[in-house]
Order: sequence, then C-alpha cells, then structure tokens
Amino acid sequence: MTTKAKPTDDSFHVFDTTLRDGSQREGINLTVADKLTIARHLDEFGVGFIEGGWPGANPRDTEFFARARQEIEFKNAELVAFGATRRAGGTAAEDPQVKALLESGAPVITLVAKSHDRHVELALRTTLEENLEMVRDTVAHLREQGRRVFVDCEHFFDGYRANPEYAKAVVKAAAEAGADVVILCDTNGGMLPAQIQAVVSTVLADTGARLGIHAQDDTGCAVANTLAAVDAGATHVQCTANGYGERVGNANLFPVVAALELKYGKRVLPDGALADMTRVSHAIAEVVNLTPSTHQPYVGVSAFAHKAGLHASAIKVDPDLYQHIDPALVGNTMRMLVSDMAGRASIELKSDELGIDLGGDRELVARVVARVKERELKGYTYEAADASFELLLRAEAEGRVRRYFRIESWRAIVEDRPDGTHANEATVKLWAKGERIVATAEGNGPVNALDRALRVALERIYPQLAKLELTDYKVRILEGRTGTDSTTRVLITTGDGTAEWSTVGVAENIISASWQALEDAYTYGLLRAGLEPTD
Amino acid sequence: MTTKAKPTDDSFHVFDTTLRDGSQREGINLTVADKLTIARHLDEFGVGFIEGGWPGANPRDTEFFARARQEIEFKNAELVAFGATRRAGGTAAEDPQVKALLESGAPVITLVAKSHDRHVELALRTTLEENLEMVRDTVAHLREQGRRVFVDCEHFFDGYRANPEYAKAVVKAAAEAGADVVILCDTNGGMLPAQIQAVVSTVLADTGARLGIHAQDDTGCAVANTLAAVDAGATHVQCTANGYGERVGNANLFPVVAALELKYGKRVLPDGALADMTRVSHAIAEVVNLTPSTHQPYVGVSAFAHKAGLHASAIKVDPDLYQHIDPALVGNTMRMLVSDMAGRASIELKSDELGIDLGGDRELVARVVARVKERELKGYTYEAADASFELLLRAEAEGRVRRYFRIESWRAIVEDRPDGTHANEATVKLWAKGERIVATAEGNGPVNALDRALRVALERIYPQLAKLELTDYKVRILEGRTGTDSTTRVLITTGDGTAEWSTVGVAENIISASWQALEDAYTYGLLRAGLEPTD
Repeated sequence: MTTKAKPTDDSFHVFDTTLRDGSQREGINLTVADKLTIARHLDEFGVGFIEGGWPGANPRDTEFFARARQEIEFKNAELVAFGATRRAGGTAAEDPQVKALLESGAPVITLVAKSHDRHVELALRTTLEENLEMVRDTVAHLREQGRRVFVDCEHFFDGYRANPEYAKAVVKAAAEAGADVVILCDTNGGMLPAQIQAVVSTVLADTGARLGIHAQDDTGCAVANTLAAVDAGATHVQCTANGYGERVGNANLFPVVAALELKYGKRVLPDGALADMTRVSHAIAEVVNLTPSTHQPYVGVSAFAHKAGLHASAIKVDPDLYQHIDPALVGNTMRMLVSDMAGRASIELKSDELGIDLGGDRELVARVVARVKERELKGYTYEAADASFELLLRAEAEGRVRRYFRIESWRAIVEDRPDGTHANEATVKLWAKGERIVATAEGNGPVNALDRALRVALERIYPQLAKLELTDYKVRILEGRTGTDSTTRVLITTGDGTAEWSTVGVAENIISASWQALEDAYTYGLLRAGLEPTD
Repeated sequence: MTTKAKPTDDSFHVFDTTLRDGSQREGINLTVADKLTIARHLDEFGVGFIEGGWPGANPRDTEFFARARQEIEFKNAELVAFGATRRAGGTAAEDPQVKALLESGAPVITLVAKSHDRHVELALRTTLEENLEMVRDTVAHLREQGRRVFVDCEHFFDGYRANPEYAKAVVKAAAEAGADVVILCDTNGGMLPAQIQAVVSTVLADTGARLGIHAQDDTGCAVANTLAAVDAGATHVQCTANGYGERVGNANLFPVVAALELKYGKRVLPDGALADMTRVSHAIAEVVNLTPSTHQPYVGVSAFAHKAGLHASAIKVDPDLYQHIDPALVGNTMRMLVSDMAGRASIELKSDELGIDLGGDRELVARVVARVKERELKGYTYEAADASFELLLRAEAEGRVRRYFRIESWRAIVEDRPDGTHANEATVKLWAKGERIVATAEGNGPVNALDRALRVALERIYPQLAKLELTDYKVRILEGRTGTDSTTRVLITTGDGTAEWSTVGVAENIISASWQALEDAYTYGLLRAGLEPTD
C-alpha cells in the first residue's frame, strides 16, 4: 500500500471510523464487500483517514484489509487499522494481536489505550504503571516497524474526572513513545461542550501533545463537543458517516466537516467534495441498508424544506433570508413543496460524470428532471442505481429505449413440499433477434431461478452474458404513501469482471421489482459490451 | 382559565412549542384532538409553558384554545398563545389579530417580533422605527389586558450579525414595554454554541432584559446551542418534543431537560417527571404518527443498547463504567444485544431482561450460547429479533419447542402473464388442534399471499391472530461464507396493538426465509396471548 499525496495537508485530520466504531450501531452488520464500497465512498469524499476495523480480532476485518490493499487505489485517504495495546505482562513484539495489526499492511495504526484508572483495574486487571508501560511499549514497537501511530484514550473524560493526573500520564506516555496524535475519547458520551472545551484546553497546556477528539452522541451534543474540542486546540476529529455508532451514535461526519468548512472557513476536504456530501451520505445509507434520515442536518431531504407558504414570496426575493447556507454548497436543494431530490444541476453533473453530453440542451435536461421526479415519486432511487439512471438518460437523449430482448411473460414458483424438499422454478418467454424462446430453470430462490431462466434463454444469442454475475442484491420495503399497500424497491449490483453497475426496480412485490432490476442489469451489460440494440 | 401553583418556581422556564413550531415539521399534520392529547402529555411531564398555536390565524388553533380551556385541567403548565406584533400603521388595541390573542383566553402570550433590519424592510415593509413602535404598543396593550408577555425576536442572531445595535434596540423596546422574557431566536438554525454564548452574554450585559433561547437544529447543535445560552445567562428555553420542527427541527426538549437536571443539577421538572421521559417521548411520537427515533439520546430504544460481547463481563461487574447515566433515571433500560460476539455474560443479562430465570444453570446457559453461535454462523441475528431469541431460549429452558400448528407444505406462485396481468397466489397445508387445513390466498406479492393464506388457515382456530399486523419487513442478502450461494435474512416486526415483536428467518431464498420469520411471529403472538401449546 502506497501513501498518496493528499490534497489537504496534515495539519488537520478528518478521521472516519464508520467501518469500525460506526458498525457498532444496532442493526448494522457489514459484509467485506459493504466495507470496501463504503471505503471507496469515503475516500472519494476526501476524508484523510479511514479506520477499517480490527484485523486479527475479527476475521472479516482481516479479510477487509487484505482485499482493500489489493482492490482500492486510495486517492485521498490512508487506511487505518485499529487495535489494542499489548497484553499485560508481555512484550509488544511478541503480542499476536499487535502482530496482526502489522500484518494488515495498514500504514497507520490506532491503538486504544485505557486512561480511566478504574477501567485499568476492572477491565484490564493490571496495575496503573503496567498500563503506561503497555502504551509505551506498543507505540514504540509499531513506530520501529515504520507505522504512524494514533492513540485513542478510551473513557478519557470520565477518567479525567476521576483521576486527572493519571489520565494525563497516559497522554504523555503515548506522545513520548512516538504517537503522532492522542485522541481524547468521550466513550460513554456523557459530556457537554463546555466540559470538553475546558478539559481539552488543560490537557493541551499540560502535555503539549497533539490532540484529537472522539465524541459519542449520548447527550445529543456530539457535533458540538467535537467543535468545542477544535476550539480548544484539537486538530484531529473522529467521526462516522451519518453518525452511525453504538447506542445513540458517534459524532456525525457530515455536520462536523460542513461546520468546519462553512462556519469556520477551514479547508478540510479536497476541492468540490463538500458539494457531493448529500449524495455520499445517502449512498452510504444504502450500503448499510438503513433509510437515510430525512431530518439529518445539511444532507437530509427535509434539511432545506420549507412549509412556510407565508414566506414563499420573501424566499423568492432572497432565499438566504430563510436558510443558513446555500444548500447547493452541500449538494442539497431547497424545497418549497413535497418534491424529490432531482434538480437541473445534479442531472447535468451526473451526465458529465457518466460521459454523456447533454450539449447544454435545456429542454432535454428539463425532460430528464421531470422523468426522474415522476419515477422517484413511485419509489425509484437513482442515487445508488447509476446504470438504471444511464439507461433512462440515454432513452431521453436518444429518443428511444435500448432493447436487446422483449419479454412476453414469466412465472416463478416456490414450494415447500410435504416430504421436506424444496423447489424454486422459473419460466421465461421472450423474443430476441426475431426468435421466440421459452426457457425454464431452477435456482436457490425465485429470483435466482428467474435469473437463470433469463440466462438460459439469452446466452445462445448473447454469449457476452456468460461472464455477468450478480454481486449484490438489496431490498427495501417502502411505506405506502397513503397508508395502503407498501411498495418494494430492489437494487441489484452486477459485475462483468472489470466493472460493476447497479440497477433498480420498484413494484408491489419483490419478485416483480427484482425482475425489473434484472432486465436493466442485462440490458446495461449488453450496452457496455458495445452491442447495438436490436429493437 | 386559572393559573396553577407550579411545582418548580418561575426562575427558570421550560417552554414547549411542539404544538406551534414543532408542527411545522414535514410530515406532521395535527388535528385538534391530537393537540389536546399532546398538551396533556406535556403538562403531565411538567413543562412550565405549552405554546398551543396561533389563534385567529388558524381556525384549528382557535378551536384548540377554546377546547383546551374547557377540557384540560393543567397541573403544571400554563397555556401560551402565539401571535405577531400589530400591523404597521395601526394600533394594538384595534388590531384584529391581537384581539384574537386576547380572545383565546391564554394567560400568556408570545409575540413574534422582527429583529433583523433586512427582514423589517423586506418582509414587514416598514421602517425600523415603526417596527420598534409595533413591539412597544403591542406588548403594552397586552400587559394592560392582564396578560403575561414573552417576545420572540425572530432571526435574532443573523440580525445581530448584520446590525447589532438595532437587534438590541428591539430587545430593549420589548423589555421596557413590559415583556417578562425576550427570546433570542436562531430562526435559520445556522449558529454554533460558541457564537450563541458570546451573543447572549453581550445582549444580557447591554440590555439587562431577562433572556430566553429558541434554537433550530440546522447545524446539528440545537441542544448544545440551548445549553450555551443557559451558560451565558438565559433562563428560558424553548424546545419541542423529539425535536420536531421545520427543516431539520427544533431543540429537542428531552435531551435539554435531561442535561439540565442530570448534568447541571438544576431542578426544572416536577418530582418523578424525568423518570417518565421515555414513555412521554414515545407517546407523543404515536400521536403525531411518526416512528420514535431508535437513536434519540436518552429515550431511544438503542440509547442504552450494548453490542460489546467483550465488555459484557465488565458490565456485569459495574454497568456504570459503560453508560453515562443510569437509564432508569429517564425511564429507559439497558439492553444487551445478542450479537455475533455473544458470550455467556450477555446471554444471562438478556435472559434477565426478558424475565426468564435461567436459575444460574451453567449447562443451560452454555447450551444457549452454543445454539446462538450455531445459528449466527448460518446468518441468523438475534440483536433485532427478540421474539425469535425468546422462543429459542424457552425451547432450551423448557426442553421443547412451543408449537401451535404444524406445517405440512406450502407453495407460492408469482406470474407476469402475456396479457400484462399479474398473479400472486399461495397455498398452505397445515395441522392445528388435530385438524388438517388447506387454504389458498392471493396477495400483492408472494410473502403477502403466504401471510394471508396462513391467516385464513389459522384464524378460525386462533381468533387471537386477527389483531396481529405485520408492521415492518426487512431483507438482507448475506454473502456466501465460502464463495458459493448467498443466503437471505428476513426480519419481520409484528404488532398486536399494544406491543411489537421482531422475528428472524434465514434461508437460501427470500420466500423460505420470510416463511420462517412469519411462523415465529405467529407462534410468539399466540404465546403472548397466553395460549398453551397444542403440540
């Protein structure tokens, strides 16, 4: 893993721990593939450090580091492995957990250290002096092995209240042994900004160490606590995307960086990154399979929504009278009525990104915006379905839908038989290149059976499909708009060995929604293969 | 309406504006009955003031004040009517809007006044001097009529930045005319705590007025901003239940009062009220018809949930090492999540929580741990499926699986026909109380069809099932552990009108996984209904 030149300098760190601490949130359970996808989003967004997990302690995290090293070319971020100081009574050089950190290949290592005397005694069951020795030994050993080291002082603020001298001794031990940053953690999240500011100021004055802050949101003040620490001189902030984390959550990355950039006038992200913030927030929510919070500061769909009919005309005169920032700065939009996220600017940006030239055709852009709004009203989302969006865009730009096959009908049967056996069977009837084809296949489920039947039907005519593979499949049940029936949205990711693309389907039931996403996935695969539509 | 003796004195005001500003939240639409119910909850909780709406401007609010006067005996709160200063160029005594405020009968009136020079010119279209006169005249008139008056200075902080002298002149005019409290409003919500604290300090020193704070959450700092104002000398805080409000929302009442009571040691609520906070928060969410936020500080169902298997043994020794307050103080409870790091200690804590006595039977606990690990390896998760976990636990503790019915077979068919029509049909064959039943039903999808067929089959024998309702359905595709086929995990939430429970199913395909979760959901529902297993 090579260290990349970073667009922002080292004087201030935006450190993301979504993949480690964020995944402690109730309901989040990340696969290695999820972690790789989130790491790509965070790197593109431009955080300086991505804490990927605890290699050695968790096989999934070990695999993540191995794959990230091979599969991701980081543009902005450095990958960080998280681990603990060595065991009491041993040496760092021989500690298997410390070895696993080195073996992860991560250029930066965050070590968690106890700084609350009672936790040293109760959880580590060792002496206060041995704990300091564990910090010194482990930091020094990792530094000798050429790694950059950050030290997280767990339960720092509670520890400081109980025994300020000892808490500071841990900070000093870490800094003197070579840790670049010592992070003061409000692990239980009970602090308020004024307390954070006072403690950070004192610790900075008394130790001279470079300090960071890790805040949890148990008092609803994690963002403010993070900023209070910055006010007091901290130059490293640990956050998670959308504030995911244990219990209430962690300091939310997005309002923290927005405050730093827009309220403090401090550059902490690469050029243009902030304007991509809303998209990144929503894309990560999709990956972790949680509905994006509609009321999240800056990036929520309601964050710049105005009910105020009274103010509408004043807003037309000067919208800045009624909003604290221009929402475009964070990739969001002002909304006067209930309408979805698509706007002219985002469509144009997106088309540029896909390499489709709309040639400044205002009418075409307006048509695409209208079409996206109409589809989003039905539950479609294009934020995480680039391929379906590209098909929609091309259909509008080229005036016709690209089709390589035409479906006549399909059927799926799932059966749990009295003898305990299962059956999943699907039949597809379609037309391709003038030929009518009927194919039946079995699978491990109805969608898999439909996928196979579609391949059986098409592969002779389009041998290119053989290398396509479904790599991810996500389902979300959308609440009915009128309290009646709900709709189902399916997102499918497909790969051909060199690239991956995502497609979306929405229908009353999961099988029909999956079918739509499958059709788009194969159509896009054939488009990518450079084939001309037949229809 | 009589003014009640209040259990807390007048030196500090907890002022709730859920019914007025909170109802500006996108998606909230309150009936008069809703408003009365919320007012009762807030009064019982013990806020000092309940702002009920804008009588005269809104017929629903006029009706609310009329009915509240007759129907509610307030124990703690005083009802507040919200309105604006008189029109430019008129007199307060003749202003119909001001008259409507008096006619509401509310003992306290909050007047909104412009304090940002540009808003005076653009929105009110009057002179700066006339705006001051409007404040003086309206406050004085209402005071003469025997009302207590609070003045909300709208856009105060933006106005102070633009023209501090004018902003302060409005505060002085209000105080000198007889307003008891002048509230500085961060209407656009763009402020950070340090800014709030500095401005409130200065305004307090320069005007000598009693000050309040009204914060919006656009920077994610509304709670901290409210506390920063208190630190600077404000003695009146305006909040909304669950932080409901326009755009991102308002300062959330619950973390604000919890911080004041538990972190500042300041008594702002009647005895015992804080311990009722979680219930009040959820009850109000029910009335406004929004799902209570699981991650809300203090009151969220996840606010004291711990995943950490590693820490479970330390938590058993001393839970206060891992939580910032005792959750019972706010009426919440600690929850141990049964996660893939499940160990002996967390199973014991979880069983205690469910009220199942494992009687210190180490062998039984070991069996449950082994069973959970074995199931989690297959992809089950019990963190979000308490009901399935309880069924598993009871099966081990009681030595038998609770069964109310026995499935023979089932089948689901999804079809997209050549004529464009759809069919979703399911057939279930089962035994219950010695009877063999075959039922077929249609639905909007295969799972819905299976759910209906199962109900059709069972409802005659178990009429208790009629009131059960599927309230949430989540699907997750899990990567194959060995690169082979993936598995599907389904989480279903079911309610019976008084409680909700979640169940999990894991299988190669979504229909089979859903079926398992459905079987558990109905079995648990029958167990909850107190029925004895038949099998």
